[in-house]
Amino acid sequence: MEQHYVFNEKLRVDYNIMHKWVVDIFQASGMDSSDAIICADNLVSTDARGVYSHGVMRVPVYVKRLLLKVTHPTAQPEVIRDSGATALITGNNAMGQVVGVHAMNVAIEKAKQYGVGYVSVRGSNHYGASAHFAMMPLSEDMIGISGTIGGTNIMAPWGGSSRMLGNNPFGVAIPALNRYPIVLDMAQSVVARGKIVMARKTKQPIPKTWAFAPDGSPTTDAEEAYNGTVRPIGDYKGYGLTYVNAIISALLPGAAFGPTVTDLYEEFSTAQDVGHFMQVIKVSSFMDPAQFKKSVDDSIDYLKNSPRKEGVDEILVPGELEARSEKQQREQGVVYPIEVIRELIDVSNNLGVTIPVNV
Amino acid sequence: MEQHYVFNEKLRVDYNIMHKWVVDIFQASGMDSSDAIICADNLVSTDARGVYSHGVMRVPVYVKRLLLKVTHPTAQPEVIRDSGATALITGNNAMGQVVGVHAMNVAIEKAKQYGVGYVSVRGSNHYGASAHFAMMPLSEDMIGISGTIGGTNIMAPWGGSSRMLGNNPFGVAIPALNRYPIVLDMAQSVVARGKIVMARKTKQPIPKTWAFAPDGSPTTDAEEAYNGTVRPIGDYKGYGLTYVNAIISALLPGAAFGPTVTDLYEEFSTAQDVGHFMQVIKVSSFMDPAQFKKSVDDSIDYLKNSPRKEGVDEILVPGELEARSEKQQREQGVVYPIEVIRELIDVSNNLGVTIPVNV
Repeated sequence: MEQHYVFNEKLRVDYNIMHKWVVDIFQASGMDSSDAIICADNLVSTDARGVYSHGVMRVPVYVKRLLLKVTHPTAQPEVIRDSGATALITGNNAMGQVVGVHAMNVAIEKAKQYGVGYVSVRGSNHYGASAHFAMMPLSEDMIGISGTIGGTNIMAPWGGSSRMLGNNPFGVAIPALNRYPIVLDMAQSVVARGKIVMARKTKQPIPKTWAFAPDGSPTTDAEEAYNGTVRPIGDYKGYGLTYVNAIISALLPGAAFGPTVTDLYEEFSTAQDVGHFMQVIKVSSFMDPAQFKKSVDDSIDYLKNSPRKEGVDEILVPGELEARSEKQQREQGVVYPIEVIRELIDVSNNLGVTIPVNV
Repeated sequence: MEQHYVFNEKLRVDYNIMHKWVVDIFQASGMDSSDAIICADNLVSTDARGVYSHGVMRVPVYVKRLLLKVTHPTAQPEVIRDSGATALITGNNAMGQVVGVHAMNVAIEKAKQYGVGYVSVRGSNHYGASAHFAMMPLSEDMIGISGTIGGTNIMAPWGGSSRMLGNNPFGVAIPALNRYPIVLDMAQSVVARGKIVMARKTKQPIPKTWAFAPDGSPTTDAEEAYNGTVRPIGDYKGYGLTYVNAIISALLPGAAFGPTVTDLYEEFSTAQDVGHFMQVIKVSSFMDPAQFKKSVDDSIDYLKNSPRKEGVDEILVPGELEARSEKQQREQGVVYPIEVIRELIDVSNNLGVTIPVNV
């Protein structure tokens, strides 16, 4: 099971130093330089955004899978079907980040030609943060959307008690003019499972609205919740969202779903066969991009300038905190929990990779 | 403000009788027969699905708008831009149902040609249930998605206290083989505002998780909630969903958003300029449709056969209850609250339309 960290001790690491370190680790795990760079871009920029759950803390498990060849280090994704504004891609069991970038680039090209591009992916692996892919079309004045099936079943259907569904995330990124882009990246549970894992580790009770015990009843016991299921946002609504995302991300391309989903952290003999979707909408098919982006800016101002409830200093729009964090941490270095760094050191020692930090 | 009904007295009305009645009312309000039929199809089938909030109870306000010409009875939507797999449509201030059906038909044709179709709409009106449009491509073995901006601002940005955003709904419909299709149609609040209106009417307290008072604090007082805002699902997540849906549904086509949104029930001098989006994905671009639909059936069985928590008789999938209701009520007649029927009678008396029921 995925690890979670108590952020007591921290270390600030220069962005480029961390990036090169991660590239070195992936190359030492059998990946080509260009693919290792794709993975490092994805993981380190996601850390810089403050989304540590999908950053380099995943490196140890990714490396373990690469060394076991349960994820293939040099495989390349390929287009199986190409039809109009759509494509079906198999990842050929390459790293999810490599597959995702390839698939989103195909969707971008489709959108340039047809105004909208839609790509469905199977045979991939855990691809990191959905936002990373959704943001790729922004520089082209296009809207990006990406979804994926989660790597572990941790949600019950509404009314059920067992782990049948992933907490399947999706991301949407919309370009703005002078403001940061709007970037929504969300899974369908009230809180990330990581918070339950943390509460269990620190033996704290959890709010009754977070999770269910294995019998399906709400619980404040983190141990019960850990063995149970996460609560979907809006109850049956979040259940519907995660299920529909699973159908589109996994059943449409013919990837793993439900009983054939294998846990990233627990199953090391079977390829994950993760499914994703990538969609791109070209703004200029509908409106002058500058005008659209100005209207997005105006909508941001409209919300940020609206009355706040007591105790709130600032109204935020989706992705704003992450964009601020990324800007700052790319310049000043990324602050990591020391446990994450220690794990990278262990991995590096095993691979004979030079360690660029002192802890 | 929208009315809500205490379902004490009910009347079962034959589906076709109600349909003809609604057609007669819209024709008497100035609409052509074909457009009146489109509206009746939309509203009566939605009632049959048990989604009364988006059925014929909307007829009185629609008729009021048509008679005032603030919605234009005979206007026709038109394609302004047609580019590859996309189109931009203006509703020309026609009825939202008429605009929506036209737009979804364009998206279906685009998807037939390009594998995916994406249509953005402005200049429309309240279009009823998103599910109605999302379901249109099902018979072609295609997935339908539709979203729209809500007719009233009733949600605050997270951390805010004022009504800045609509509770913007979207619908997704996915074909199945022998099972009912998966149909998810959801707004982004924990509960529909109608439930708060009802609690206020019956002077009942509401759960603290439903809504906020005008100062942004959670409240159990229905009167305060009525004057405040609805709580988004997953707090900041539902806020993100409704905002992103607004950008895609309204800003992209250049429709009303935020300060320019006018209330369906309170503003009778300005056209609503509602925006929608319609998207269609052709299953056969990715997989044999029969195989895909079988995999959807299998996923439904997998969920429905999973362990249930105590007190739950059956696990449902999105759209299942509505599809059962529609099948039954199309055959046996649609059960209406008597208040809805009384309002249709009032409207009919004003228009000189023959009333086909006795109450």
